Amino acid sequence: MKKKVLLAFSGGLDTSYCVKYLGEEKGYEVHTITINTGGFDAQEIAEIEKRAKNLGVASHKTVDETKNYYDKVIRYLIYGNILKNNTYPLSVSAERMSQALATAIYAREIKADAVAHGSTGAGNDQVRFDMILNILAPGVEIITPIRELKLSREEEISYLKSKGVDMNFEKAMYSVNKGIWGTSVGGKETLKSLGMLPEEAWPTQVTKKDSEEVKLTFVKGELTKINDKAFAHPTEAIQHLQSLAGPYGIGRDIHVGDTIIGIKGRVGFEAAAPMVIIKAHHALEKHVLTKWQLSWKDQLSQFYGNWLHEGQYLDPVMRDMEAFLTKSQDNVTGDVHVQLFPYRFQVMGIHSEFDLMSSKFGKYGEMNLGWTGDDVKGFTKIFGNQTVIYHQVTESAKKG
Amino acid sequence: MKKKVLLAFSGGLDTSYCVKYLGEEKGYEVHTITINTGGFDAQEIAEIEKRAKNLGVASHKTVDETKNYYDKVIRYLIYGNILKNNTYPLSVSAERMSQALATAIYAREIKADAVAHGSTGAGNDQVRFDMILNILAPGVEIITPIRELKLSREEEISYLKSKGVDMNFEKAMYSVNKGIWGTSVGGKETLKSLGMLPEEAWPTQVTKKDSEEVKLTFVKGELTKINDKAFAHPTEAIQHLQSLAGPYGIGRDIHVGDTIIGIKGRVGFEAAAPMVIIKAHHALEKHVLTKWQLSWKDQLSQFYGNWLHEGQYLDPVMRDMEAFLTKSQDNVTGDVHVQLFPYRFQVMGIHSEFDLMSSKFGKYGEMNLGWTGDDVKGFTKIFGNQTVIYHQVTESAKKG
Amino acid sequence: MKKKVLLAFSGGLDTSYCVKYLGEEKGYEVHTITINTGGFDAQEIAEIEKRAKNLGVASHKTVDETKNYYDKVIRYLIYGNILKNNTYPLSVSAERMSQALATAIYAREIKADAVAHGSTGAGNDQVRFDMILNILAPGVEIITPIRELKLSREEEISYLKSKGVDMNFEKAMYSVNKGIWGTSVGGKETLKSLGMLPEEAWPTQVTKKDSEEVKLTFVKGELTKINDKAFAHPTEAIQHLQSLAGPYGIGRDIHVGDTIIGIKGRVGFEAAAPMVIIKAHHALEKHVLTKWQLSWKDQLSQFYGNWLHEGQYLDPVMRDMEAFLTKSQDNVTGDVHVQLFPYRFQVMGIHSEFDLMSSKFGKYGEMNLGWTGDDVKGFTKIFGNQTVIYHQVTESAKKG
Amino acid sequence: MKKKVLLAFSGGLDTSYCVKYLGEEKGYEVHTITINTGGFDAQEIAEIEKRAKNLGVASHKTVDETKNYYDKVIRYLIYGNILKNNTYPLSVSAERMSQALATAIYAREIKADAVAHGSTGAGNDQVRFDMILNILAPGVEIITPIRELKLSREEEISYLKSKGVDMNFEKAMYSVNKGIWGTSVGGKETLKSLGMLPEEAWPTQVTKKDSEEVKLTFVKGELTKINDKAFAHPTEAIQHLQSLAGPYGIGRDIHVGDTIIGIKGRVGFEAAAPMVIIKAHHALEKHVLTKWQLSWKDQLSQFYGNWLHEGQYLDPVMRDMEAFLTKSQDNVTGDVHVQLFPYRFQVMGIHSEFDLMSSKFGKYGEMNLGWTGDDVKGFTKIFGNQTVIYHQVTESAKKG
Repeated sequence: MKKKVLLAFSGGLDTSYCVKYLGEEKGYEVHTITINTGGFDAQEIAEIEKRAKNLGVASHKTVDETKNYYDKVIRYLIYGNILKNNTYPLSVSAERMSQALATAIYAREIKADAVAHGSTGAGNDQVRFDMILNILAPGVEIITPIRELKLSREEEISYLKSKGVDMNFEKAMYSVNKGIWGTSVGGKETLKSLGMLPEEAWPTQVTKKDSEEVKLTFVKGELTKINDKAFAHPTEAIQHLQSLAGPYGIGRDIHVGDTIIGIKGRVGFEAAAPMVIIKAHHALEKHVLTKWQLSWKDQLSQFYGNWLHEGQYLDPVMRDMEAFLTKSQDNVTGDVHVQLFPYRFQVMGIHSEFDLMSSKFGKYGEMNLGWTGDDVKGFTKIFGNQTVIYHQVTESAKKG
Repeated sequence: MKKKVLLAFSGGLDTSYCVKYLGEEKGYEVHTITINTGGFDAQEIAEIEKRAKNLGVASHKTVDETKNYYDKVIRYLIYGNILKNNTYPLSVSAERMSQALATAIYAREIKADAVAHGSTGAGNDQVRFDMILNILAPGVEIITPIRELKLSREEEISYLKSKGVDMNFEKAMYSVNKGIWGTSVGGKETLKSLGMLPEEAWPTQVTKKDSEEVKLTFVKGELTKINDKAFAHPTEAIQHLQSLAGPYGIGRDIHVGDTIIGIKGRVGFEAAAPMVIIKAHHALEKHVLTKWQLSWKDQLSQFYGNWLHEGQYLDPVMRDMEAFLTKSQDNVTGDVHVQLFPYRFQVMGIHSEFDLMSSKFGKYGEMNLGWTGDDVKGFTKIFGNQTVIYHQVTESAKKG
Repeated sequence: MKKKVLLAFSGGLDTSYCVKYLGEEKGYEVHTITINTGGFDAQEIAEIEKRAKNLGVASHKTVDETKNYYDKVIRYLIYGNILKNNTYPLSVSAERMSQALATAIYAREIKADAVAHGSTGAGNDQVRFDMILNILAPGVEIITPIRELKLSREEEISYLKSKGVDMNFEKAMYSVNKGIWGTSVGGKETLKSLGMLPEEAWPTQVTKKDSEEVKLTFVKGELTKINDKAFAHPTEAIQHLQSLAGPYGIGRDIHVGDTIIGIKGRVGFEAAAPMVIIKAHHALEKHVLTKWQLSWKDQLSQFYGNWLHEGQYLDPVMRDMEAFLTKSQDNVTGDVHVQLFPYRFQVMGIHSEFDLMSSKFGKYGEMNLGWTGDDVKGFTKIFGNQTVIYHQVTESAKKG
Repeated sequence: MKKKVLLAFSGGLDTSYCVKYLGEEKGYEVHTITINTGGFDAQEIAEIEKRAKNLGVASHKTVDETKNYYDKVIRYLIYGNILKNNTYPLSVSAERMSQALATAIYAREIKADAVAHGSTGAGNDQVRFDMILNILAPGVEIITPIRELKLSREEEISYLKSKGVDMNFEKAMYSVNKGIWGTSVGGKETLKSLGMLPEEAWPTQVTKKDSEEVKLTFVKGELTKINDKAFAHPTEAIQHLQSLAGPYGIGRDIHVGDTIIGIKGRVGFEAAAPMVIIKAHHALEKHVLTKWQLSWKDQLSQFYGNWLHEGQYLDPVMRDMEAFLTKSQDNVTGDVHVQLFPYRFQVMGIHSEFDLMSSKFGKYGEMNLGWTGDDVKGFTKIFGNQTVIYHQVTESAKKG
């Protein structure tokens, strides 16, 4: 009996090659899985399914992982206002983890002997897939034909043609990866340290010119309403916001960062909804959290984002951090008003019953009922006491 | 003989009141000092001097602290890419420390018996001034008439008029504080949690519409050239950049943050040069620093900024952090290209001989000479080893 | 009608003075409360109650807060292995918070108009009591006669005598504060920077000479059994362990640390059970937690301990940290063997089904089934990749 | 012409095997190097040299790296009070880095084509050696016969005998690694999670019974004198202290920790001088540093120690941290008194002109000249202000 391999299948050249290679050269029964994290619409999914069928797979499975992806990952990226290197919402990093998790689970379900993925040996994805599979599907063989064979694009095409496969072999100018938490765009400009993607490279073109205001409602840190319209699941709110903010060209930027394998990478991305949500959520938090909540959230979140990026989602420290982040959201409830403009947006302010700037209890720049100038004088004396002593002691020691 | 008081003098209503009050009600010999941190031009300085004279001070001193301010503080705000709550370049917080330091030093120089400042009992500045004076001028009395007397604007005006003082008593709609590291703007919109400053409230109006590119050259973290023009001191480069970027309305935002006294405060600011410099500097660092340098710089800098904001500049931990930050700048040398647009800017990329993205040593997305796919497979196994064991042990324990 | 004051009453000279002063000089109806955090036995409690009655209080209440103290505070000190400055289990700091919390709650219950405590103006306790009362009993007046009147011991005695109070007025050589989480001892040696408490100053004298082994069982981080004997509540296990380890003189040390008011303080303490529990718990964690769990627990716990020490228990960031710490204890289940000796103890090792050192999955110093030497070679290449590139780039840049 | 290999040579079975294997099976010209980090005495060095000669090496070099080891590494372990997992002074981890650095430098000096080391595939050392060699000697081949061939002890012996090598082939019950910063001891007890090394396993036996006091003098964080005797270099002070404290059996413990390769490891160690120095140095710091200096030093040092342990000494972030640590030692000057007992020691206190506990400026437990009880009341109000507001706002929101 043939051994079963489960292949994570995107419908592109590399994974199409893998289907044929695994089936015909390696003698596997090839099953494919496509995991939608909000980046594919129904038509694209249908096309991928058709291509899998045409390539002769034993079975093809489409999994809509979007809600799971939010529940397990995106939720915490919002709680933590996570932007890698203060720029990048981790669009691809987070999504790839989600896809690896779903692949591992399905591999166990169908009792696959092996799992294959189309990663090269030059990027982050190989680590993320291998890592999750090593953990969740121990004993299952991992096969990465593209990484191992190091074939050129031309070699892959010629092999597929020799197997009678007919598909669009034209290479896109820009490689695009789309998911609910943002779209990455790579091209010749991002391979160098200097240079911006040209206007036409961006998947979402700028079609809105007139500014508009949008109101985001958060309940315990989760986006529940937009302009007072409620959604069944936060993913729907995100997608609705994307449809409003995307056509402004909001959230375009270039991320430069450390790959898991130690080199620096540079990639363009557009992420209108993620950027607006994170900035709006953070603005609300600045009003409702205490100073040390804000400070510790920043520290934990920076690590959480990096560790996720590096494929370490299953380290239990991530669960501990999620417990912290979840608890920190107790009072993160309120409305945030955001003005959208072409290429940018501005948070206008917030309204929350948990607002610590409440004028009932103290107003910046005006005298307050709760304390006096003398209290502040006393405070300052004690607050600076140790430094006062430090300077007196040091001066006295220097004099001998 | 009369006791000497040194008054930090801005020429506004409050400190004008203080001159008369300290001299005529309290019997002090009143000396005034105005510390320019890059916010006053020659004409403004001349007007302040004239006002001091008209109020009958025993002496008036103008100190241009701009370069010192940079050398002691701003330099580290740039090294650390410091934006409080990820937004605010600490324009006023940093400047006030610098002014308090210069005031304390001058007070010792003229052997003042007392130092007076015009802070109210409702903000951060009282803490900053008191703190620095307690430390650097121990034994010198601190007098804060506005905090203690809690007079209304009208009472101050009527007192001054009774003393024959004639000045412009009209209240500005927006209170503005200008320095080389940014200008703050407060008004009725910032007293509430919701609402943006209107266009006319911004001191720098938007007069440039066409995009332009600017090249910033950093040497060991310091801005030395703009568009290949060298400057004698980084403060001059900052001011030149401000003249280029300011008229685009770049760097306008609203900051919501924790005051030292525990309440939340909200303030508008415009800081074109600081925002462009910090983002450009950070972009360069992303290319030339290692992952953990970036990570630790973030952690230390967040604290450094907050502690500075809270007036604790003289805590020796700040010197320790400065030693770290300075050392971290060894390789932060190179050019950063930035495109300026109305209300926004985009970092286009960098060029540096220290660029770790150097294609000589490894190129993201392409196979590299330095290692193989097998190396990455081995890496991933070991990198994920502990989490693999964790999940196996936990599963095994749960099964009993 | 007289106003009601609730006085936190210890039965000592200061609080006895307060009873009379508040009742007779200030005209309050004086209610007293004594909060037992495990430091008083039944006889001591009875004596305190008798003394209150003799002083003529309107009512006296004894609250046994021991279990609450554990549930709200000590539990997290164990989860976090918290030793301030790596030395001190926060015996008094933690206890005082617990007492302040119980006092505030009772003050609200009896609708007190004022709360009084016997703190001086020179220590930490005044801040802890005031802080908690300001938060939990806003509007209730706080009275601190000892801080305000700055009376000498002699003046207090003579006043009490004049009111016909007869009690033991002799001053103890050493001031001792006893609770379930340790006993502090202050005396003339601790007022200086050099000098150890003499043998006779320690409340628990060393009476055991022969070593014995003790087995501690933890379930999700909580001490549930000692030598296989189960306890109804962890506080009972702590007290039992104290009875075993205390007579060895274990856990004696001197703590030097920062007070809330900025000066340094030095205090002796004995804390046999806390020290053994924390070291045993930590040993277990080293076996069952991942590297980054251990690392982040350390960072959060250091802050948690300091912030508790400074009276900030009610900052919501503390609840967020508790959520993290609680989650981190999921696998902290197992036995720890400890050998007790006079003045010291040694953790001998642990047994846990969650032990990541499990020989089933990898054995240090022996070759393992899960990976090969080649995997480690690959790992090392990638793990060091960025530093390799850094050094090559830097060398190349230096050569120009 | 034969290719040159440089072999890190300890004189033990594994590296003796390597000499013959590399020379006779692989055809290299074998040069050996032994790096003394303070663990070998003159006689041991002579024996190693003789053994190398007998094995027929082309050349043998002995490098005394002790002072360099201190200057580059140990100094910072002291500045940072670094104990891994709060227990282990990193004796072997730090030493191995030092040996790898010296090996790489010598390899470049003699223009070796390859470097060989005797590491197995199961421990940390392989990573440390490979990492440093990859960085400092790029292009030089790394050969690790023991890791690659996975020979049993018996196979190695029989091979050596076949080559006419005659040496003591008896296996020690305990494997011991000795250096100036501590001695590690591994044996059958440390391979399991439970069990202590027996008395006879410890290299230094307990021969002192009577307590003695020792005075350590630090200047800017460095140990310069012991009992007022000055030393030419801190390494001599460390060795002298070791001779005083070692015979008490001080500093024996078991460390359980995370290896670089993800498994847990357990090892015994004795480190009398390191433990006494670190605790004494830390005690001095508690008196002379500010609260936040202590806190940040802890955070940085924990990372510094872990990253060193993981072989990442050459990451430039380590230099940045060293700059911080060095600056933090400005005032760490003074005497520390320590009492030595069998198996334990007690820090008795310190004397320093930089002591912030100076009674001149504030005394814990007594009223102070610098501030009043009212100042502390004011302080407490402001210090707790945000939490007060938080609880009022939250309560008010809950009521609706």
